[in-house]
Amino acid sequence: MSICVRNTPRADKAVVEGFAGIGVATVHEAQGRTGLLASYMRPIYRPAHIVGSAVTCEVAPGDNWMIHVAVEQCQPGDILVVTPTSPCEDGYFGDLLAASLMSRGVRGLIMEAGVRDASTLTEMGFPVWSKAIFAQGTVKETIANVNVPVVCAGQLVNPGDIIVADDDGVVVVRRKDAAQVLEKSRAREEKEAKTRARLSAGELGLDIYGFRDRLAAKGLKYVDYEGD
Amino acid sequence: MSICVRNTPRADKAVVEGFAGIGVATVHEAQGRTGLLASYMRPIYRPAHIVGSAVTCEVAPGDNWMIHVAVEQCQPGDILVVTPTSPCEDGYFGDLLAASLMSRGVRGLIMEAGVRDASTLTEMGFPVWSKAIFAQGTVKETIANVNVPVVCAGQLVNPGDIIVADDDGVVVVRRKDAAQVLEKSRAREEKEAKTRARLSAGELGLDIYGFRDRLAAKGLKYVDYEGD
Amino acid sequence: MSICVRNTPRADKAVVEGFAGIGVATVHEAQGRTGLLASYMRPIYRPAHIVGSAVTCEVAPGDNWMIHVAVEQCQPGDILVVTPTSPCEDGYFGDLLAASLMSRGVRGLIMEAGVRDASTLTEMGFPVWSKAIFAQGTVKETIANVNVPVVCAGQLVNPGDIIVADDDGVVVVRRKDAAQVLEKSRAREEKEAKTRARLSAGELGLDIYGFRDRLAAKGLKYVDYEGD
Amino acid sequence: MSICVRNTPRADKAVVEGFAGIGVATVHEAQGRTGLLASYMRPIYRPAHIVGSAVTCEVAPGDNWMIHVAVEQCQPGDILVVTPTSPCEDGYFGDLLAASLMSRGVRGLIMEAGVRDASTLTEMGFPVWSKAIFAQGTVKETIANVNVPVVCAGQLVNPGDIIVADDDGVVVVRRKDAAQVLEKSRAREEKEAKTRARLSAGELGLDIYGFRDRLAAKGLKYVDYEGD
Amino acid sequence: MSICVRNTPRADKAVVEGFAGIGVATVHEAQGRTGLLASYMRPIYRPAHIVGSAVTCEVAPGDNWMIHVAVEQCQPGDILVVTPTSPCEDGYFGDLLAASLMSRGVRGLIMEAGVRDASTLTEMGFPVWSKAIFAQGTVKETIANVNVPVVCAGQLVNPGDIIVADDDGVVVVRRKDAAQVLEKSRAREEKEAKTRARLSAGELGLDIYGFRDRLAAKGLKYVDYEGD
Amino acid sequence: MSICVRNTPRADKAVVEGFAGIGVATVHEAQGRTGLLASYMRPIYRPAHIVGSAVTCEVAPGDNWMIHVAVEQCQPGDILVVTPTSPCEDGYFGDLLAASLMSRGVRGLIMEAGVRDASTLTEMGFPVWSKAIFAQGTVKETIANVNVPVVCAGQLVNPGDIIVADDDGVVVVRRKDAAQVLEKSRAREEKEAKTRARLSAGELGLDIYGFRDRLAAKGLKYVDYEGD
Repeated sequence: MSICVRNTPRADKAVVEGFAGIGVATVHEAQGRTGLLASYMRPIYRPAHIVGSAVTCEVAPGDNWMIHVAVEQCQPGDILVVTPTSPCEDGYFGDLLAASLMSRGVRGLIMEAGVRDASTLTEMGFPVWSKAIFAQGTVKETIANVNVPVVCAGQLVNPGDIIVADDDGVVVVRRKDAAQVLEKSRAREEKEAKTRARLSAGELGLDIYGFRDRLAAKGLKYVDYEGD
Repeated sequence: MSICVRNTPRADKAVVEGFAGIGVATVHEAQGRTGLLASYMRPIYRPAHIVGSAVTCEVAPGDNWMIHVAVEQCQPGDILVVTPTSPCEDGYFGDLLAASLMSRGVRGLIMEAGVRDASTLTEMGFPVWSKAIFAQGTVKETIANVNVPVVCAGQLVNPGDIIVADDDGVVVVRRKDAAQVLEKSRAREEKEAKTRARLSAGELGLDIYGFRDRLAAKGLKYVDYEGD
Repeated sequence: MSICVRNTPRADKAVVEGFAGIGVATVHEAQGRTGLLASYMRPIYRPAHIVGSAVTCEVAPGDNWMIHVAVEQCQPGDILVVTPTSPCEDGYFGDLLAASLMSRGVRGLIMEAGVRDASTLTEMGFPVWSKAIFAQGTVKETIANVNVPVVCAGQLVNPGDIIVADDDGVVVVRRKDAAQVLEKSRAREEKEAKTRARLSAGELGLDIYGFRDRLAAKGLKYVDYEGD
Repeated sequence: MSICVRNTPRADKAVVEGFAGIGVATVHEAQGRTGLLASYMRPIYRPAHIVGSAVTCEVAPGDNWMIHVAVEQCQPGDILVVTPTSPCEDGYFGDLLAASLMSRGVRGLIMEAGVRDASTLTEMGFPVWSKAIFAQGTVKETIANVNVPVVCAGQLVNPGDIIVADDDGVVVVRRKDAAQVLEKSRAREEKEAKTRARLSAGELGLDIYGFRDRLAAKGLKYVDYEGD
Repeated sequence: MSICVRNTPRADKAVVEGFAGIGVATVHEAQGRTGLLASYMRPIYRPAHIVGSAVTCEVAPGDNWMIHVAVEQCQPGDILVVTPTSPCEDGYFGDLLAASLMSRGVRGLIMEAGVRDASTLTEMGFPVWSKAIFAQGTVKETIANVNVPVVCAGQLVNPGDIIVADDDGVVVVRRKDAAQVLEKSRAREEKEAKTRARLSAGELGLDIYGFRDRLAAKGLKYVDYEGD
Repeated sequence: MSICVRNTPRADKAVVEGFAGIGVATVHEAQGRTGLLASYMRPIYRPAHIVGSAVTCEVAPGDNWMIHVAVEQCQPGDILVVTPTSPCEDGYFGDLLAASLMSRGVRGLIMEAGVRDASTLTEMGFPVWSKAIFAQGTVKETIANVNVPVVCAGQLVNPGDIIVADDDGVVVVRRKDAAQVLEKSRAREEKEAKTRARLSAGELGLDIYGFRDRLAAKGLKYVDYEGD
C-alpha cells in the first residue's frame, strides 16, 4: 500500500519569506552545519535562488507517475522534493510538469534524478536542482508515497520543512527550527558583511580572527625560502 | 587493416531538415524510447540544438589521427560522430579541426571523449557534445575506421543515420525510419502543446490523463496529515 | 611540525605577463604535453582566463585554516593553489576569502576541493577552478604547510611556478622553464593562426600535414559504400 | 554543542537473533523494499553476514575522534554505524579500534567512509562494510554526536534500529517494526525455498507466477527468427 | 509493442567449445581488439571463465520482468546477456533465477546492472559478470524485447553471438566470425606460450620484439643518472 | 625527445628489507601522513604486501611500449611504477611482462591504469596494484620517459624511492628519509602492539589516550536517552 498525505503543515509564511536572499552556505552554517543535500544536486541554470515549503514525493526508478499525484498537493510557495527509491538518472520531469507546477505557484523542483527539456525550463524560468539532465523518458506503472518523510540526496526531508536552494546547493531546515535558524542566519549575514568590508580593506583574517597565537601553539613555524 | 568508407548515403534532405527545432526528448519518445546516447554526453555551451547526418569515426585512445581522415568525408549538413576504441578524456578536437569542419558545412561534433579550445569553439558557434573538456593533447600514430557502424556512448550509430542533439542530450534515428519518426515527433509536439496549455491553465495531469482510477486500483490511499 | 615559507621567488614579471591570452592547450603543447592538472578541475564560470605565480597551500580534509595563513604570503599577480591532504569536496573557500585575496591583487584560485558562494564569486569576477561547488563548511583545527612543493590534481606545483588557467583546464609551468615555454607558445600560436586560415579556406589537414602517405603505409584503405 | 546519548534502547534480543542467517535482500523485500543503504557500502571480505542493534556515530571529515566516544556506548550484540558530516574516504578505523569493539562483543562496523588495516581486520574476523579501503589517517580535533538519528549511505538510522548486513549490502529495520519484519522475512524464505525447488526442477517462472497472460495483455508478441 | 524472438541461431557447437580455456584478452586481440564490453563489467567471484551463445534481453530500469521471458528461450550452453534501457544498479537477478537458468544448462549471466544473493550465487557456482552487487529489488510492470540486437556495456550483442568472459572482462564474437577468431586465438596462444618461456628465461622484450632500433628512431636516448 | 635514465640509485638494502611486514598505514603515519597514493590503487588479489625500490615509467594513453624499456632497467628487489600521461584504464600489463619482471627479481607492479591476465597473475603470485582490471590491449607507437620523477596516483615518485604496498594501498618513502621513517615505523608498531593488548583486554581508548577532558572542553555532553 502507498499513501498520499493531504493537508500537511507549512511553516509560518513570514518565516519562509524571511529566508529570501539568504544563501545556502549561510543557512547551513546557522543551523550548525546540518541539513545540506549531497554535492551532486546542481541547478540546471545559474544563478538561481529559491525558498519554500517542501512537498515530498517518492518515485520508483524510471517511473514518474507519483509526481502527478504530488502536483495536486502543492500550494503557492511550495517546493517539490522528489527522490527515487533506487538511484536513477532518467528524465523524470520536463516542461509539461513545470507548466503544471507553475500554474499552482510552486517555486521550484529538487529532483534526486534527471530532468529533461532543460532549455525550455530555463526559458520558462522554472528553477530545478537535479542530479542529471537527460532526455530518457519514464513510465507510469508503479506507485509510491507522497508527503511522507523521505531521504533526498542524503538528508531527511519532511513535508513542510523549509527548503533553501542556490548555486551552492540545497539545504533543508526543520519547520519547528525555522524561526530560530532565520534569526541566526540574519545575524551571521550582518557579521559577515562587516568582516568582508574589513577584508576588502586589506586587513588579514589572521588578525581579525586572532589566529596567530593558536597557529603558533599548534606548531606552525615561519621560515624564509632557501631554494634556488 | 583499417578502412575509410566513401560515398555513404545520407537521409532525405527534407526529412533531416524537418527535425530542426524538435527536441531530443520528443524524438526519443517518438521512436519508442530508443536511440538515446548516454547521459555523460553534454553540450560545451547552452543552448545548442542541431540536426544532421552522421559521419562516423573511430579513434585510438589519445590519438586523433582518424578525425583528419573523417573530415574529408564530410558534406554540408553532416554531423561528425567520434568514438574512441577504449575510454579516454583527452582533448581530441580543438579550434583548428572546427575551422576545417565549418568550412565544409558540418553542423557539429558528437565526441565520446574530451575536446579543447572550449572558449574558442563557443565564440565560433560550433556546437559540440562531449564527455569532457580537457586541454590534454593527442598523437597521430594509430589508424582505425571511418564510416563503419560504431557504438558511441552506448548506442549503435551507422553512417547516414540522423543525429539530433540539444541540451537534453543526443539521439540517433535510423535513416530508413527517419520519415516515420519525424511524423510521430510532429504529432507528439502538437499534442504536447495542447496539453501544456491545459496544464498552464490549472488542469491537473491526474484528470487530463485519467490517472485517478488506475492509481486507486494499484492501492494508493489518500490520508490526512496527523502529525504535530 | 608545519611550516609556512616566506619570500618565495616569483618568475620574471615580463615573462608571466607574456602568457596573458595564451590558451592552456597551447602552453601544454609548448612544453611537451606536461604540467596539465586533472580534468576534474573546472572553472566556476566561463569564460575565464588567468596567468600568475603560484602560492601553494596544503589543507587538511574539511579544514580551511591554512588558507588564512597563505593569504598573507600572497602578492599582486599571484594565484593561490590549494590542495587537501586527502580527497575532499567541502566548500573551503567563499566570498570573504575572495575579498581578502582581491584586496591583495591575487588573480584567482586553483582549489582541488569545493568552493562556495559561487554566485557571489561570479559577481565579484574572482576566477576559481575547483573540483566541486558545495556549501559544506570547514573547520579551523589542523595545520599544514604553505609554500612547499605540493601535488595538486596530479601535478607537482612549486611556489613561484607559473599557472595558466582557462576554460580547458589548468597548466603549471616551471619557473626556470618559463621564458622558453613562452617563446615556444608564441611560435605555436603564430603557426596555428596560419594553419587555421588555410583550414577555414577549405584546405584539408590530410594535405596540409602530409598525412596521406603515412596513412596508406599504416594500412588505411579507402572503399566505396556497398550497403543498402 | 555535541551530545553523546547513553542508555539508548535495543530491540528485543530474540527478535534480533531471529534475523541471523536471513539475507539482506529478503529483509529488504519483507519490509516493502525500504531501508537499504546505498550500493557503495561493500564488505571488506566475503562472505560476511551479521545482525545486531545500531549504535550511531557522526564524525567530522578526516576526524575519527567520536568513534572512541561511541565505543564506550557499545554492548554485546551491537553494530557500530558511522557516518561523516561530509563525504570522505579516509581510513577512519583500523585494527586497534576493532580490538576494542571485539572486546565489547560488537559484531561489526558500518562505515560510510574508508577503513584501514584491511588484511588484519580480515584475519581477526571482524566484519566491516565501508565505502573504501584506504590507509589515509585521520585526526582527533572535532566533536560530533553519538546515538542521535543519522543518515548513513542514504538511509535514516536511529540508535537501537536493527542492522542486517551481508554480501548484497546493508539494510536497516526500525526497532518497533522488527518483530513484524522478521515474521514476513521468514514467510518469504519458506515461500522462496519452495519456488526454488520448482525452478531447479525445470518449471518456468512464466508458469509458476502466471505471467503469460499479463505479458500478452501488455503487448508482448512471440515471433520466429528470420535472419541469416 | 515488444517482441520475443524464438529459435534464434547458435554458433557451431564445436567452435563454441573450442573457446573453452582461452582468455578474454586473447580473443579480444585475435579479433583485432574489438568486441570488449566496458571495464565496469566485473565477475562476482574469481576466478571465473565461461564461453557460450548469447541470448539477449532488454529490461526496463528497476524491472526484471523480461528476464523471466528470456529464461524460456535459453538452451544448454547459452549465456544470458541482459541490458537495461537506462542505467540502473538494482539487483535484477538472484538465486531463484539462477536456479531456473541452471536447470536449463545455462552457463552464466552478463548483466549490465546489479545482481543480488551474491553469496548464494557463489555457493551455487553460477558465474555472473555485473556492474554492481546490490540487494535493491525490482518490479514486473514493463515489457521490452528478447533476442533482438542489444548494446550491452558499449558493445553490440546479437542473439547467437559467442560470449567469452573471465576475470579480465567480457568479449563478444560475431557468430559468423567465430571459427576464424578461434583459429587466430589458438595461434596467438601458442605464440605467447613460446614468448613467455623466453621471457621467463631472462630474454628481454626489447630484443625478442626488435624494439631497440624503432625506439632509437623515435628519439629515445639513454643517459646515466646524475643526481645525488 | 624522451630519455631512459640508467644506473639510478637504490636505497640501502638493509633499510628496504626492514620495511618487510610493516603495513602501509604504519609507514604513512610514521612519515607524517605523506606519500600515500590515491585510494583507487587497489591490489588485484588479497592479501598482498611488498616493499622495494621504485623504477619509474611514463606511458602514453593506450600505449605500453615504454614498459618494455623499463623492464631492462629493473634489478632484483625493484618495484615497477607506471603512470600514463593522461588517464587510461586499458590493460597495459599481462602475464608476459610479469614473466619478464619475475625473471629479473622484480617484486611487483604499481600501475595507474588497467592490467589484464588477472587470474594468471594471481596464479603466478605476481602482486599488482592498479586502477582497473581490463582486457583492452595497447599499442607500441609513442615513447616517453623512464626513471624520471613521475606523479603516480597523486604522489611524486622518484627512481630509487621506496615503495610499500599492501591491502590498504601504496605509500612512497623518499630514499634519503628511509632510515628515519623505518625507525619511526618500528617504534609505532611496538607502541600499537601494546595499545592493542590493552584495548583487547577491555580498556577504553577514552581512558588510554586521555580523551575525556579534551572532549568535555570542546563541549561534548552526555545525556540519557529520552525517547520511546
